[in-house]
Amino acid sequence: MAKKPHTTMRGIIPAMVTPLLATDTLDIEGLHRLIDHILSGGVHGLFVLGTTGEGPSLSSRLRRELIDRTCRHVSGRVPVLVGITDTSFIESIGLAEHAADCGAAALVLAPPYYFPAGQPELLEYIRHIAPRLPLPLVLYNIPSHTKTTIEPATVQAASDVPGVVAIKDSSADMIYFHRLAGMLKDKDGFSLLVGPEELLAEAILLGGNGGVCSGANICPQLYVQLYDAAVGRDLRAVAELHERVMAVSNTIYRVGQYESRYLQGIKCALSCMGICSDFLAEPFHQFGQQQRQTILKHLRTLALTGLDN
Amino acid sequence: MAKKPHTTMRGIIPAMVTPLLATDTLDIEGLHRLIDHILSGGVHGLFVLGTTGEGPSLSSRLRRELIDRTCRHVSGRVPVLVGITDTSFIESIGLAEHAADCGAAALVLAPPYYFPAGQPELLEYIRHIAPRLPLPLVLYNIPSHTKTTIEPATVQAASDVPGVVAIKDSSADMIYFHRLAGMLKDKDGFSLLVGPEELLAEAILLGGNGGVCSGANICPQLYVQLYDAAVGRDLRAVAELHERVMAVSNTIYRVGQYESRYLQGIKCALSCMGICSDFLAEPFHQFGQQQRQTILKHLRTLALTGLDN
Amino acid sequence: MAKKPHTTMRGIIPAMVTPLLATDTLDIEGLHRLIDHILSGGVHGLFVLGTTGEGPSLSSRLRRELIDRTCRHVSGRVPVLVGITDTSFIESIGLAEHAADCGAAALVLAPPYYFPAGQPELLEYIRHIAPRLPLPLVLYNIPSHTKTTIEPATVQAASDVPGVVAIKDSSADMIYFHRLAGMLKDKDGFSLLVGPEELLAEAILLGGNGGVCSGANICPQLYVQLYDAAVGRDLRAVAELHERVMAVSNTIYRVGQYESRYLQGIKCALSCMGICSDFLAEPFHQFGQQQRQTILKHLRTLALTGLDN
Amino acid sequence: MAKKPHTTMRGIIPAMVTPLLATDTLDIEGLHRLIDHILSGGVHGLFVLGTTGEGPSLSSRLRRELIDRTCRHVSGRVPVLVGITDTSFIESIGLAEHAADCGAAALVLAPPYYFPAGQPELLEYIRHIAPRLPLPLVLYNIPSHTKTTIEPATVQAASDVPGVVAIKDSSADMIYFHRLAGMLKDKDGFSLLVGPEELLAEAILLGGNGGVCSGANICPQLYVQLYDAAVGRDLRAVAELHERVMAVSNTIYRVGQYESRYLQGIKCALSCMGICSDFLAEPFHQFGQQQRQTILKHLRTLALTGLDN
Repeated sequence: MAKKPHTTMRGIIPAMVTPLLATDTLDIEGLHRLIDHILSGGVHGLFVLGTTGEGPSLSSRLRRELIDRTCRHVSGRVPVLVGITDTSFIESIGLAEHAADCGAAALVLAPPYYFPAGQPELLEYIRHIAPRLPLPLVLYNIPSHTKTTIEPATVQAASDVPGVVAIKDSSADMIYFHRLAGMLKDKDGFSLLVGPEELLAEAILLGGNGGVCSGANICPQLYVQLYDAAVGRDLRAVAELHERVMAVSNTIYRVGQYESRYLQGIKCALSCMGICSDFLAEPFHQFGQQQRQTILKHLRTLALTGLDN
Repeated sequence: MAKKPHTTMRGIIPAMVTPLLATDTLDIEGLHRLIDHILSGGVHGLFVLGTTGEGPSLSSRLRRELIDRTCRHVSGRVPVLVGITDTSFIESIGLAEHAADCGAAALVLAPPYYFPAGQPELLEYIRHIAPRLPLPLVLYNIPSHTKTTIEPATVQAASDVPGVVAIKDSSADMIYFHRLAGMLKDKDGFSLLVGPEELLAEAILLGGNGGVCSGANICPQLYVQLYDAAVGRDLRAVAELHERVMAVSNTIYRVGQYESRYLQGIKCALSCMGICSDFLAEPFHQFGQQQRQTILKHLRTLALTGLDN
Repeated sequence: MAKKPHTTMRGIIPAMVTPLLATDTLDIEGLHRLIDHILSGGVHGLFVLGTTGEGPSLSSRLRRELIDRTCRHVSGRVPVLVGITDTSFIESIGLAEHAADCGAAALVLAPPYYFPAGQPELLEYIRHIAPRLPLPLVLYNIPSHTKTTIEPATVQAASDVPGVVAIKDSSADMIYFHRLAGMLKDKDGFSLLVGPEELLAEAILLGGNGGVCSGANICPQLYVQLYDAAVGRDLRAVAELHERVMAVSNTIYRVGQYESRYLQGIKCALSCMGICSDFLAEPFHQFGQQQRQTILKHLRTLALTGLDN
Repeated sequence: MAKKPHTTMRGIIPAMVTPLLATDTLDIEGLHRLIDHILSGGVHGLFVLGTTGEGPSLSSRLRRELIDRTCRHVSGRVPVLVGITDTSFIESIGLAEHAADCGAAALVLAPPYYFPAGQPELLEYIRHIAPRLPLPLVLYNIPSHTKTTIEPATVQAASDVPGVVAIKDSSADMIYFHRLAGMLKDKDGFSLLVGPEELLAEAILLGGNGGVCSGANICPQLYVQLYDAAVGRDLRAVAELHERVMAVSNTIYRVGQYESRYLQGIKCALSCMGICSDFLAEPFHQFGQQQRQTILKHLRTLALTGLDN
């Protein structure tokens, strides 16, 4: 019934956090443990340097180091997608070339996010950058951070640009998502991915091809199981797994006060689980002891207490 | 009556556009002509790599080249302020060090603009970055682009951080501006600058110390005259000059359709005046012939038709 | 698995348009035809004076006449829900009493929508008004129109107020919806209804109890079939019917330019179908000939060309 | 230099609060004392049933009673302007007729505020309602509450509609205000009024004709003095009085947590001063003891402690 997605753009592609020891220092051992932890969940790909990966907060140098080390450690086990979103066209291209050199599978690009762009400007931008990129391109719609929605008509036009193979929608607007799904339903080889994991169940049930879940840093298997249940049309399992996904969202992501809290929560959980450091790049900061205790309590309630969850 | 501003942070400090021949190529001759044109207007400083300077759209390399060439060409005639706003803490510091090496006078920094930050996060960020900067720091409030207002209480706390010497307010919210003015009124050595030139008259009449005007790329003298009239309490002249400032805004900035149009208008006007190229960095593009004709017509109506305006 | 909803708050409860001959004149014959048309689709209830019913645009007198005539014509065939949303507490109570006198089954109330209220103010408002209402109360979350989201914690507290029996969520925010569904899942006798029909499929599949669909003015059976398919876990039928629901949304609701266009589209379609007048209350206006031709073309494509669709 | 405003639409026209004993009960003695208090300040008019007057929260009956009692008590001492903003066209007209019968001087109308309207819809609405109104009409721009800005081109077109004599701008957007001022500057007999009193100084200095100040409920003379100083071009006095206006705003309006706090603050201050009750219409509520103590402390600091301030 559903269209065939792009070969490598389907299933659960976790949005990996970037383990840090300091603002410009990777937690290399933590990175290796995290990659192995995520891949042990049976995921279909790995996405680095997205929003959850704090891509925009990292130095150009560290972004390159992360791409290099990730690709080497993943070593072909799954496709690696690399976020190249930048307000500078030139910097995006530079990152893309580095990602290709390291063996990444695809690039993920949100609109430049300082100046709000009009739709024709956005489309022209995509048409200008795509031919200069050495890898397939996934568009990334996240208006909460870029101020600009990639409107359905723009997505449709962009989907005809050579090299553009998918769109990841993090708008959390399911009416928008359904409009894309309808528009793209006969476009074989083009994938529609959903960002917020709270919407994974319905996205897969109603025409989506995969999810870029942040929670999969913590418990990758949960999202893979939900994806499989949805693909397999097992609604009883979908309902139960969806409820567990909501439980992660309602606990781990809701400690703390500001919008960064979901990220603080994920990194804190990973630290509690012994996987990697909870250091965040500026302008954000790791949780203090009290909030860490709350996260620990939530992990116990969720039965997510260690690497062998 | 008014407090004494920071010595070099007062008067008209134009937000210079970045003359480009291509996305990663400076229009060097245009840059020199533009600097001389602006300085001929009697301005008090020069601000590069701000919003109008397309700072976030430029490569790290080009930003450095621009700082270097601008400082050399200005050659001490006025203080040069350099925008170091970046989503990456490390990149901001790198730019700051380069600016200091080139002889810039101060740095201008808006909050990181990808992830929205809470006020305590923002204050902590300012406290972390200020000690690592080699030059005085001007805070830059521009919530339309950063999604985050630097709230008055945060400005007050930040104004006590060593090295923080001014705030440039581009919120266009005069109630906010008046709250800042009241709060900072006894803080000698700290400057309050206004962004939108349409608000320059009232900002100076009611406690501000200067303006960072974009229109001063085109007709710098106009803003200097308005500033002088306001400082001199010559209300008749203020009213007349304010009306001319509004005329620029109502014409040059309102050709085209999207938010980038004010920038397209300024660069187009400068090109029509024979000063520099009208190329814009991605994702924006220069006006076509029809819009250029409209700009030309406006320039004639405004009696701004050449270098010798 | 799912909780038991309130007895009469489940299934498809169309948000009926208000047929008008002029700003303060009901199209009485159109009203009767429309009610019969909607009820012929097998719907579970009827909701008048909501957003689609132009409730806030109508005079107090006309609202009362509409309630009276609707209740009489429905004559107990389905429960009638009456929107009593008003910026004035007293006017809401007056409408509620009239609705009870006419035999309505329940009341629907969004927050007062002129001044934005804080959550504690909103909760106190609900606690003050509920005891003064003669019928069960459905809360109505529609932040696009009221500026205020009824936050999950407020919904939870309000769900314990005697008389509050359901919430209709028109936020189009499915993460919010899922949070409500999780929170309310053991609350027997309390219903969770979804507003936008584009989200009906997933809302019913994942814990919702019904939908308040605007499109059901035109083709009520479609939404009833989708609801039944979702309740019956027939995913193949859900996918097909969801696609047809999206087709109505992508055509009938997208003629015209402003936010009122979905309403102009519905009324125009009903007029084309010979059911009722397409007159809209101020400040809106019916489509002109060209737009009417487009609606007609869409109706033909959708195979919705007359009362016997 | 400046255009001549409408004869009766100039100077300080306080936005009067509505003194209440209960949600649907006027504080009649308080109303009389309040009117006399405000008029003792030398104001140029009186505006009832605006945002500060809680117009939309009041029953139709109470609005009529207030208009009647206010007009009778003012008894021609100043022109009375009556807010007729309503989501229902018919209700607005009904209020307007009542206001004319009571001897009001003019009507004030914001766009219908439930459904967001497009600009052509808004203009058509103004063109439809103006001929049906028995008194001169003041447009009221308050997008924070109506969701819709009356854009400059719409104001220009509306200013040619017979009966439309002024616009009150409560957008707090001074660039917008200056655009209106420029556009209307040769339109004799048409007034431009500013809403937020924090912007009164600059509005009068740069082309405005008056202000509709909420703080004038408490200390009317202050705003009259500021208006006079600005009209008289006495910048030293303007600066000092503007500072006192900001002091009211920074204290009385900032106790409490939600957007209603400015209104709670004004009513609480009036109650402390022995002028009228501090009861607020639903969904808002008067301050508790602790907040009242803070208001009292602020009143003392501001030297506003009684009727004889």
